[in-house]
Amino acid sequence: MTLVKRLALLGTGLIGGSLALDWQAAGAVREVVGWDVVPAAVGLALAEGIIQAAAASPEEAVAGADLVLVAAPVKATCDLAARLGPQLKSGQIVTDVASVKAPVLAAWERACSPGVEFVGGHPLAGSEKAGPQAARRGLFQGAAYVLAPGGSASARATELVAALVRLAGAAPVFLPAERHDALVAATSHLPHLSAVALVSAAAELAGGALGLSAGGFADTTRIALSSPVMWRDICLTNRDAILAALDCFSRRLAAVRALVAAGKAAQLEELFNVVRETRSQLTSAREGTACAFSPPANPTARP
Amino acid sequence: MTLVKRLALLGTGLIGGSLALDWQAAGAVREVVGWDVVPAAVGLALAEGIIQAAAASPEEAVAGADLVLVAAPVKATCDLAARLGPQLKSGQIVTDVASVKAPVLAAWERACSPGVEFVGGHPLAGSEKAGPQAARRGLFQGAAYVLAPGGSASARATELVAALVRLAGAAPVFLPAERHDALVAATSHLPHLSAVALVSAAAELAGGALGLSAGGFADTTRIALSSPVMWRDICLTNRDAILAALDCFSRRLAAVRALVAAGKAAQLEELFNVVRETRSQLTSAREGTACAFSPPANPTARP
Repeated sequence: MTLVKRLALLGTGLIGGSLALDWQAAGAVREVVGWDVVPAAVGLALAEGIIQAAAASPEEAVAGADLVLVAAPVKATCDLAARLGPQLKSGQIVTDVASVKAPVLAAWERACSPGVEFVGGHPLAGSEKAGPQAARRGLFQGAAYVLAPGGSASARATELVAALVRLAGAAPVFLPAERHDALVAATSHLPHLSAVALVSAAAELAGGALGLSAGGFADTTRIALSSPVMWRDICLTNRDAILAALDCFSRRLAAVRALVAAGKAAQLEELFNVVRETRSQLTSAREGTACAFSPPANPTARP
Repeated sequence: MTLVKRLALLGTGLIGGSLALDWQAAGAVREVVGWDVVPAAVGLALAEGIIQAAAASPEEAVAGADLVLVAAPVKATCDLAARLGPQLKSGQIVTDVASVKAPVLAAWERACSPGVEFVGGHPLAGSEKAGPQAARRGLFQGAAYVLAPGGSASARATELVAALVRLAGAAPVFLPAERHDALVAATSHLPHLSAVALVSAAAELAGGALGLSAGGFADTTRIALSSPVMWRDICLTNRDAILAALDCFSRRLAAVRALVAAGKAAQLEELFNVVRETRSQLTSAREGTACAFSPPANPTARP
């Protein structure tokens, strides 16, 4: 069933491209008009069947679109609000996929005219790969997908975006923007910065022998392969939550160091057991994501 | 070609079991006699075809073996030296797979009678799984496998173990024990402890919502699923190198925190670019491991 006649895709890379492919395959989106800050990406997106028409500017792309999907790093997502907000018309719905939600919601709610509805989104899945050539159907299968509707969003707009999320195989999870930002600071931004510090430290300590590392090192630092610009933006826009997470991490690390320094065998084994148990539950919880959360009837819609 | 008539396998779990399967498949080992500290593991190892005969004690297993493979956590590997050293006879060769090499070499070189030859080993591969049921052929395909021959080891003994390593599809890399231990402190032990602190911190910060994390968190913390006893032993036996690695990591983490706190956009992006480049080279280096290192003609053999 067609839910969206004309989708404006601003950012034709891995995330936006994969969503556009899923939605077209499900028959939910009839036509996609694409624009990207990297002109070559638009050509690739056309060739990959992600979009059917290329726009020369974001303004051109959003004209006449019933849904606008902004699939860009946080700062670019905020910047597009100021640029496009005045032009968007009542009845147009905007959603995004940026990794930090509070500043994005603030920017779009401030910039848009009344009647334009903003539903913030963040799929908790992805890859260290990037660009339209990395986009694929099913990327979000089984993943949680956070939705943070703005005050401007009606229940109808929120339900439209939630339906699209489900068509991509993901489970909508409704969270207030600030709660989302604190959560991803702990579970995504902190692991990235820890991986960055790990690679730096291991390179300093191991020098040219870093290649002798085993799979554990590769797993632990894979996230450091993903986009430097995206992560720079995340650090700038979610600063306070990230600093709090880093400080909590440093305290935990200091506690581990103290146990190692003192040779506390029983306490080390106990700590490793507790952490293994917590991490195992995570695996089970992820498998059950689709059942564990359901959207509220009418989350934060205005009357 | 048969290189080993009778292999004594002390520890029939993931690592020892996988090596025994590889060597038998290659026709290099004729018979495997197994013992494990967990009696049920021996039965499983028989059922899985890892061993052909079960021994009631390590003493019984090593009697008449031309090669002894100790596949146990570090502390158990050291403890077996004192127990078996006096019994082993000239001409018998011992190798191990423990994650820390200096204390293992010291224990076996001290305990064994003259003529018993010890070649320390450490395959830089594995899995968070454990036990004979997790053992499989090809686990070490393409991995680096550090060899640290003791002063007791002749070139013939060292070359025998290196040949077995190659038959498992791995690349022997000769390193002094202390150099190995400093290297794995940085590339393996530090990532584990960092993952432990990450899980602790994220659980504290995210509470019940930890299941909402994305693949990056799962990758970054997978290593925390592996054996608590193994990691406890590693922390106890490689303490100084681990403390040095933790301190280097803490300095790097503090530097990252300072950039985030000060909102240094350009420097954050530059750091993320440098780290991504270092991490990418790691991927290439691993693919080239088999070519990048070759054993010295006669590493540290005594005359």
